[in-house]
Amino acid sequence: MAQEQGDYRILHEGALRDYLAGLPEIAALLGGEPLSWAITEVGDGNLNLVFIVRGGRGGIAVKQALPYVRLVGESWPLPLSRAHYEYLALSKQAQLAPGLVPALLHHNEALALTVMEVLEPHIIMRKRLVAATQYPRFVDDISTFMARTLFFTSDLALPAAEKKQGIAAFAGNHALCKITEDLIFTDPYRIAEQNRWTAPYLDGLAASLRDDMDLHVAISRLKLKFMASPEALIHGDLHTGSIMVTESETRVIDPEFAFYGPMGFDVGAVLANLLMSYFASAGHERSPAERAAFEGWVLETIEQVWNEFARKFLDLWRSEASGDAYPVSLFAGERGVARLEAERQAYMQRLFTDTVGFAAAKTIRRIFGLAHNIDFELIEDPKKRAISEARAVRLARAMMVEAAAFRTIADVTGAARKLRDWQPELSN
Amino acid sequence: MAQEQGDYRILHEGALRDYLAGLPEIAALLGGEPLSWAITEVGDGNLNLVFIVRGGRGGIAVKQALPYVRLVGESWPLPLSRAHYEYLALSKQAQLAPGLVPALLHHNEALALTVMEVLEPHIIMRKRLVAATQYPRFVDDISTFMARTLFFTSDLALPAAEKKQGIAAFAGNHALCKITEDLIFTDPYRIAEQNRWTAPYLDGLAASLRDDMDLHVAISRLKLKFMASPEALIHGDLHTGSIMVTESETRVIDPEFAFYGPMGFDVGAVLANLLMSYFASAGHERSPAERAAFEGWVLETIEQVWNEFARKFLDLWRSEASGDAYPVSLFAGERGVARLEAERQAYMQRLFTDTVGFAAAKTIRRIFGLAHNIDFELIEDPKKRAISEARAVRLARAMMVEAAAFRTIADVTGAARKLRDWQPELSN
Repeated sequence: MAQEQGDYRILHEGALRDYLAGLPEIAALLGGEPLSWAITEVGDGNLNLVFIVRGGRGGIAVKQALPYVRLVGESWPLPLSRAHYEYLALSKQAQLAPGLVPALLHHNEALALTVMEVLEPHIIMRKRLVAATQYPRFVDDISTFMARTLFFTSDLALPAAEKKQGIAAFAGNHALCKITEDLIFTDPYRIAEQNRWTAPYLDGLAASLRDDMDLHVAISRLKLKFMASPEALIHGDLHTGSIMVTESETRVIDPEFAFYGPMGFDVGAVLANLLMSYFASAGHERSPAERAAFEGWVLETIEQVWNEFARKFLDLWRSEASGDAYPVSLFAGERGVARLEAERQAYMQRLFTDTVGFAAAKTIRRIFGLAHNIDFELIEDPKKRAISEARAVRLARAMMVEAAAFRTIADVTGAARKLRDWQPELSN
Repeated sequence: MAQEQGDYRILHEGALRDYLAGLPEIAALLGGEPLSWAITEVGDGNLNLVFIVRGGRGGIAVKQALPYVRLVGESWPLPLSRAHYEYLALSKQAQLAPGLVPALLHHNEALALTVMEVLEPHIIMRKRLVAATQYPRFVDDISTFMARTLFFTSDLALPAAEKKQGIAAFAGNHALCKITEDLIFTDPYRIAEQNRWTAPYLDGLAASLRDDMDLHVAISRLKLKFMASPEALIHGDLHTGSIMVTESETRVIDPEFAFYGPMGFDVGAVLANLLMSYFASAGHERSPAERAAFEGWVLETIEQVWNEFARKFLDLWRSEASGDAYPVSLFAGERGVARLEAERQAYMQRLFTDTVGFAAAKTIRRIFGLAHNIDFELIEDPKKRAISEARAVRLARAMMVEAAAFRTIADVTGAARKLRDWQPELSN
């Protein structure tokens, strides 16, 4: 499926039409004359061009990487190779979690271009969370996606040699890792040009984070873990904007930040974005009953995501452990089996602590860093927005500095519940 | 310096002479007619051929990898690529710790062959430890070697992109890593054909280790850390048989197990081998005064190796931190500087805990696994040997299962001192 053909050039509408017309399988899938195909640019992400192409028979999605960060422009170059890593990750995820990522139809490495199934009527989950829509498939699908992609690329499932090859295969994606290292693990905690927050209300809070040395130690430990803990092939950007949903389906998209990193970074990303959705709820116009129903659903979803993820991951470990870690030959007999099971629980506890810390990091960056999210941004009244954000930050600060004090996911949702009506002191 | 020339063939004396004669710089260094060169095979390691070649002017050492484990034979194949990784590691170590590794003169990747300076009158340190010889340069040199090679290849010194490139460059050395994973972290704790120990005296102890589930959890955690914690470019086999010494010089040799792994594995290897030398002392024929002097020197050396390593590593961190971890911009001002310094101490404490655990793993494998060492093996009376070994194992078991309870290196040497005259129960 992968092809090397020609040098890189940006394919805008006309060139894209010609290119696709030259791919017989894609042209057949679209159907009809190329000139009849409707091509629409729909990319609303930060990095790439995304086109939906519709023909007489069907539609496709085309994603092409730009040699710079779209959100910022040519002044911030970014390697095209990220499209290659996205393709690699998508292929692996399709194999490990079939049906939970878009089907791959074509990839051209030189053009940094990938053709995938068009996802409709799927909607970006974050958008629907803002509208307080509840998704029945979400917990089961996202927990399956995480459990399977993380377990099967870890030392619990892979021989060490294969794991090392996987690490090496993604080592070149360092430019995307560096974005995370800077924007999530560094900039929100210091003065940085790209930082922004809900001013003036959060000015004091922003300053206090920049001065909070316990927090700086905690974020630095997380950063080191992000850089030097290749536990599994992680998605690397698993927020609710990377998840598309319908009533009956879930698709995880955009794994261009994928590399071998700490599992808790993916799990924490999902939990953090649900927590932000919970805290944002107070700022959106909803009746008290609607608000209560949505918030209850979000908190329940948070608990279920972790619990289902942990349950599925442990089940895989019990039934499909073919890796070099924790060899079963060292845990023979009744006592051995029991001791290994206890160690599995201890392993999940360590992973939970990581998850709590990374979730906190993902929250703080969305409130003080470069990239914000619409959960908060669509709260028009800046004071209301600041109140929601300050509540989220209060929880995140505790989760980062005292991560191990949160023993269960109920400790996290319980703390969130207690902050529901907390009135922060705002600046001005 | 690196060359690709011709396919692999084993170069025994005649072929080696012809090959070296074809290298003008090497031939000039040796001096005289090639037929006058004296070629002696001196390899006493487990894996390779090693020749010393002497000519009219000078001498060289030639190391060639065999496509199998020399100790076992052709039934245990091993990739020649290890010579490439050894060359890569040696080059990096020469740059970071000049004068502490042999000078590289020539490398031929296809032949898996490296020409180095001949080390004389250097002696393998382990041999002289058995003879109770004390080396004044050892502490300073080995602590410098470890501090500099580990610090400068870590996230504290390297930008994340460069670190990831380094990890990828060594990822192919997985066959050598697998030897460690099996022989150190797995086999000694289960029934394995290649295991051996001082029978029958240690039969009971061997069985108790195979049945010790706390120990199996501890060794499995260390194994996972070995596989998935690329903290720095480690030597990977840093026992006292990989260190050559004179009164005035130290050279670290044989880094063919090098890869990006946990720092504590190297530091633990040095400490473990000194601890074994300490426990072996009781089994060798020495006067009480000689024994006391040697044992005192070894324990003092153990303390100094850790303390000097930690001091030098911390000094490098304070003065040469150009990596992406712990960015100084997050620790500005007096309070920030103080907090970062406290975190450096906490980091070293975590590294010490790792070191204690890995030292224990390195000890147990030398007593129950495939590869033993002459510290113990040269104790002719098997009962005396078993007593020394049982003392070492008692300490190692505590160090592995309760690693964090050893807060300082004095806790380790203190525990060793207490076991000096402990009488274990032996089998039979």
